[in-house]
Amino acid sequence: MSETYSIGVDLGGTNLRVAAYDAERGFLETLVLPTRLSAGRDQVVRDMCEAIKGLRTRDYGCRECIGIAIGTPGPLELPSGILRRPPNLPGWDGFNLKRAITIALKSEIVLENDANLATLAEQRLGAGRKYGVVDLCVLTLGTGVGNGLVLNGKIWAGASGMAGEAGHVTVNNEETLPCGCGSRGCLEQYASASAVIRMARARFGDAGPSTAHEVALRARSGNPQATRIFEAVGRALAVALAGLINTLNLPLYLLGGGVCEAWDLFSPSMFHELEQRSYLYRLTKPEVLQPTHLESSKTYILKAELGSSAGLLGACVAGLEASTTLSAPGKELLASQ
Amino acid sequence: MSETYSIGVDLGGTNLRVAAYDAERGFLETLVLPTRLSAGRDQVVRDMCEAIKGLRTRDYGCRECIGIAIGTPGPLELPSGILRRPPNLPGWDGFNLKRAITIALKSEIVLENDANLATLAEQRLGAGRKYGVVDLCVLTLGTGVGNGLVLNGKIWAGASGMAGEAGHVTVNNEETLPCGCGSRGCLEQYASASAVIRMARARFGDAGPSTAHEVALRARSGNPQATRIFEAVGRALAVALAGLINTLNLPLYLLGGGVCEAWDLFSPSMFHELEQRSYLYRLTKPEVLQPTHLESSKTYILKAELGSSAGLLGACVAGLEASTTLSAPGKELLASQ
Repeated sequence: MSETYSIGVDLGGTNLRVAAYDAERGFLETLVLPTRLSAGRDQVVRDMCEAIKGLRTRDYGCRECIGIAIGTPGPLELPSGILRRPPNLPGWDGFNLKRAITIALKSEIVLENDANLATLAEQRLGAGRKYGVVDLCVLTLGTGVGNGLVLNGKIWAGASGMAGEAGHVTVNNEETLPCGCGSRGCLEQYASASAVIRMARARFGDAGPSTAHEVALRARSGNPQATRIFEAVGRALAVALAGLINTLNLPLYLLGGGVCEAWDLFSPSMFHELEQRSYLYRLTKPEVLQPTHLESSKTYILKAELGSSAGLLGACVAGLEASTTLSAPGKELLASQ
Repeated sequence: MSETYSIGVDLGGTNLRVAAYDAERGFLETLVLPTRLSAGRDQVVRDMCEAIKGLRTRDYGCRECIGIAIGTPGPLELPSGILRRPPNLPGWDGFNLKRAITIALKSEIVLENDANLATLAEQRLGAGRKYGVVDLCVLTLGTGVGNGLVLNGKIWAGASGMAGEAGHVTVNNEETLPCGCGSRGCLEQYASASAVIRMARARFGDAGPSTAHEVALRARSGNPQATRIFEAVGRALAVALAGLINTLNLPLYLLGGGVCEAWDLFSPSMFHELEQRSYLYRLTKPEVLQPTHLESSKTYILKAELGSSAGLLGACVAGLEASTTLSAPGKELLASQ
């Protein structure tokens, strides 16, 4: 049993998940609450902070809660902790979430982008731990395409906290359909679950499959139209991955999220296109695509190991490490109270 | 006057440049030799090592040469120091350049990709020093498009030394013309001097301008065809920069190389397209594009400060810092002699 534990929060557009965690036992307790967006952001912060305070008073047999970390959908400006037009938290533009939580809890906290925390969890507890890798990139193919980078074992948050938006790398410069981000031809428009459904609707009409899972079933039953949708997913991923590989030359790129259930359907076209698109990948391609250990100087593209709890786990890990990562602005904020 | 100096080498496909350098006086002596590729790689290594040995025996009033660093065209596998099909050093595929130089000099050396060293120089002595920035990305628009990253003040070489190939990010996925790297639609095919000449030939025929400089002159004289070429350069840069900004969120991206002479011609379309392509850029766009100081949390795209000697300067800087950066394999290599 550890002496210390942390509290992690995954603030989603639908659910608010709060957990107490220690390094040996994992989750000690988890709470799932609805994110009451319609009641306003102050109410959501109150709900979150009440849940955190509740977990803080429990006796987990640990001496001390040493850190609290919260993952939020972005864009999140750091170190200030201000949200910038977050599409999944409508009405929260310009809200200083870090300040609001810090004041409500009377505690320093770590606030991070949720995809970055999920990536941290993959490095500390998932594929990074399994393979002994300290540099990795995660692309989460969910409703959108999330992205995070861990470099030298630390979240790469960028100059203003907004790194890790490779879901909005252009993969089709001729696309005319706008992406939610305002650009056109983003990876997210081809490799997210929403994209799979949109492409299915274009091919099958409204009577066609209505989830990415159903499109995958249809492809596996031999439907060539459905098959082509996943080939497009694979090619789009290859263009984006080629850019990431050529630029960063990381040893490990992980794909997570619901669309990865269709790995068998999109990965052949992804690997084929990637070999065309990246000479660096050709030079560093491993012989075994599903390895038991990673050879050095090779580039691996694998499925993420942690599921949908990666973000919450990452928050818990960041909480445990908070004493070493808390930024000066957080301390100043508290001192000014 | 410094107590110590370094020796830096810029191994180019045409010239071999060797310099002695100290931190206070800059270059103490520079030598430029032809790179005698036709005489074979062993001869080139001999020429380089003779020049280095010569500079080592001089009296610059310094006590000690504390490091030797060599920049080479890539792809270069690190830490081994083996070249992998380098297009500018034909016949050198598989050559362990690091071992050959280490043995010839009987000294540990630092071997790095030349574009990475040029980026290091920009961080230590150019725009990075001027603006106090430790994270930056350089794109050098020359015959090809070179690229380097300095993160946390250190060259980001990647898992196998081959990071910094953003010149081969796909910016036009529908392009059919092959790039030298084997892909199609790479940044280098639109934003290099060779690309400008190729696009000019397509528009003007063989009687048209034969250098990027001449194309720029024609554009400045009001020729709409020439103007459109630089607009294409700007749009291609924007697609690539949008990807780099969305992924890494660095404070500073520098453009160098000969094509930057046409900054006035390509930058309007670059900035215009970038605002469309990257919501992160829209959120972090500075009010002043040519600043005297950089505001935090903003994204700047500026001209590189150092010219064509950036690579040689970077090698000299890496030489001065060699005692802290020499990798274990270099030491092992020498111990095994």
